Amino acid sequence: MRKFYFDNAGTTKVFDETAKEMMRILTEDYYNPSALYSQNIKVEIESAREYIAEQIGVSASEIIFTSGATEADNWALLCGQKNKNGNVVISEGEHSAIYETAGELKSKGIEVRYAPLDKSGKLDYDKFAQLLDENTSLVSVICCSNETGAVNDLTLIREMIDDRCKRALFHSDCVQALCKVPFDNSAPDMMSFSAHKLGGPKGIGAFAIKKGLKIKPLITGGGQEKNMRSGTENCAGIVGFASAIKCFNQKIDRALVNKMKLLLKQTLCGIDGVNVHDANGNSDFILSASVSGIKSEILQHLLYDDGFVIGLGSACSARTGKNRVLKAMGVSEKEIEGNIRISFGCDNTMEQAEMLCDSLVKNIKILKEKLR
Amino acid sequence: MRKFYFDNAGTTKVFDETAKEMMRILTEDYYNPSALYSQNIKVEIESAREYIAEQIGVSASEIIFTSGATEADNWALLCGQKNKNGNVVISEGEHSAIYETAGELKSKGIEVRYAPLDKSGKLDYDKFAQLLDENTSLVSVICCSNETGAVNDLTLIREMIDDRCKRALFHSDCVQALCKVPFDNSAPDMMSFSAHKLGGPKGIGAFAIKKGLKIKPLITGGGQEKNMRSGTENCAGIVGFASAIKCFNQKIDRALVNKMKLLLKQTLCGIDGVNVHDANGNSDFILSASVSGIKSEILQHLLYDDGFVIGLGSACSARTGKNRVLKAMGVSEKEIEGNIRISFGCDNTMEQAEMLCDSLVKNIKILKEKLR
Repeated sequence: MRKFYFDNAGTTKVFDETAKEMMRILTEDYYNPSALYSQNIKVEIESAREYIAEQIGVSASEIIFTSGATEADNWALLCGQKNKNGNVVISEGEHSAIYETAGELKSKGIEVRYAPLDKSGKLDYDKFAQLLDENTSLVSVICCSNETGAVNDLTLIREMIDDRCKRALFHSDCVQALCKVPFDNSAPDMMSFSAHKLGGPKGIGAFAIKKGLKIKPLITGGGQEKNMRSGTENCAGIVGFASAIKCFNQKIDRALVNKMKLLLKQTLCGIDGVNVHDANGNSDFILSASVSGIKSEILQHLLYDDGFVIGLGSACSARTGKNRVLKAMGVSEKEIEGNIRISFGCDNTMEQAEMLCDSLVKNIKILKEKLR
Repeated sequence: MRKFYFDNAGTTKVFDETAKEMMRILTEDYYNPSALYSQNIKVEIESAREYIAEQIGVSASEIIFTSGATEADNWALLCGQKNKNGNVVISEGEHSAIYETAGELKSKGIEVRYAPLDKSGKLDYDKFAQLLDENTSLVSVICCSNETGAVNDLTLIREMIDDRCKRALFHSDCVQALCKVPFDNSAPDMMSFSAHKLGGPKGIGAFAIKKGLKIKPLITGGGQEKNMRSGTENCAGIVGFASAIKCFNQKIDRALVNKMKLLLKQTLCGIDGVNVHDANGNSDFILSASVSGIKSEILQHLLYDDGFVIGLGSACSARTGKNRVLKAMGVSEKEIEGNIRISFGCDNTMEQAEMLCDSLVKNIKILKEKLR
């Protein structure tokens, strides 16, 4: 039975065109891009860098390729603190690549301050501002939440930093924002990106460092990527990353994504006991909702049997069994247990969304009747 | 004009079968391996892990996938030191991923001791032993040199460590050893491996950690790889890594590689002013030689025009313009300027090797006549 994926904030297969592009790089007579006689592959990599930088809205020289956003997030936290005696401020809504790495900093004796979220999943700006002081050396706030699609105002955060801790560096995990929600690319000093959330391959990401800013490399060695990220360049991954952005931009119907989200939101809001975690300005690509009193794994299985794949919060938080971000939003344990995440991609159609709505209504009803 | 690659210690394209395997993973309806409903891709990853572990000679649970050997080498050095007040001993023959990262440790105030090489490029075991003491907490010695093919005796190194600094951990970069030279896989506590030196994709490697040994992760976050290496798994890369080893083992004609190396060695030894850096027990896959009084880049270009691609030391040291490892062997500056590296892979034939010999003899003669 064919499955319809409504878990595109996670990962499905890569675009066919992207796979073809990668195949070309993998099988043609290119060469180690750092060795002599490798002009062709160098041109491929630099042209991919140009395109990706342009899409992010920075210059090519500001982009360094990494093995993914997790590495980029680690890099920001582990090397982005100029003053080791300073404090680090992150939000409670961070991806685990930031949250867990901040825990590592803490275990090394560095003071980490956690800025709370409001009920909609956005940063609580007032409380965030109160955490900043002249000793703050690093701030990391996610641009668009991978759990809820809530979008933080990077411009406002920058202003607060400029106001209260001018010397602090500002990092933002922009993985779910790229090509999906508009964001102020000039506000952060550092940004993290990933290919595989846009139909690109896994194992490739990018770290953007603002021109003129000096950050130590996380991984040292052969001096690739202008001495900022050593290791033989993942050429097929880099070219695949650029190809995926190109394909995504060509194929995505933003008006349709908006309509599908609206339909699903209205449908879910119409079901008794369902709490949709949505707010103005949220990403159209992610919809998070809690069904009180059910276990979402069971709902996920029932939907799967009807042909739909949906998520339960991010895969990166699946292991812990708890949804830290929803908890920070004040969502009750009971609601967290019944939380689902629906996310949209290029392959979803209105017809599929309508069928998913029917399946949701039907299966939530079944589960609730069992509970009586 | 078709080119014959004699730079297989560097990188060429991946095996066709490997590209096909990767294509399958990239384009089939697999799923985020950490999310639900991803049994198929999990099976693929674990079966690749089993195979790779078996080829290394360790158990699957000892293998953690990384973005490459550079990351694995960094991991060993940055997290493998249990006692931060202890000293770190590395050889002068290390890959830059170890050598440069040791420099980072040094800049943090950690004592790094450098064990010299003998004239053949092997570790000077006596001098190495003298550097070890009860304060040594970490040792890293490359198994097979990427520059010269010199092979170090891991068993002997282990004995010396057990004798003089029992609590120290022993890491070895085994990138050029895997599938190419026999090595004592039980001697090191940690080993680094890479796919793309065996006809696999770039951007994937493995770190082997001996069972029972507790090492902190270098990259933290979603807790993938049993919490040892976070970041969405590079499924296509992992499957491609296993496929490449399989293909390499099937296709490689070890007797032929031995014959080709012997022929090239004899040819080069027969040319006046050529110094071949070879010794008993060296890898058959790498041959390093210096032609006194010429610039090897020019020779490389002339050989290229004849249809041959050869290396000049490793690409990872190409940027610095100097060959640190040859220098440590006592090779003169003049000879280093004229150093070439010839390395063999599955596609090389005896006929190609004979033609390469002719081209070498001819072009070295031309260059020397120009010098008169």
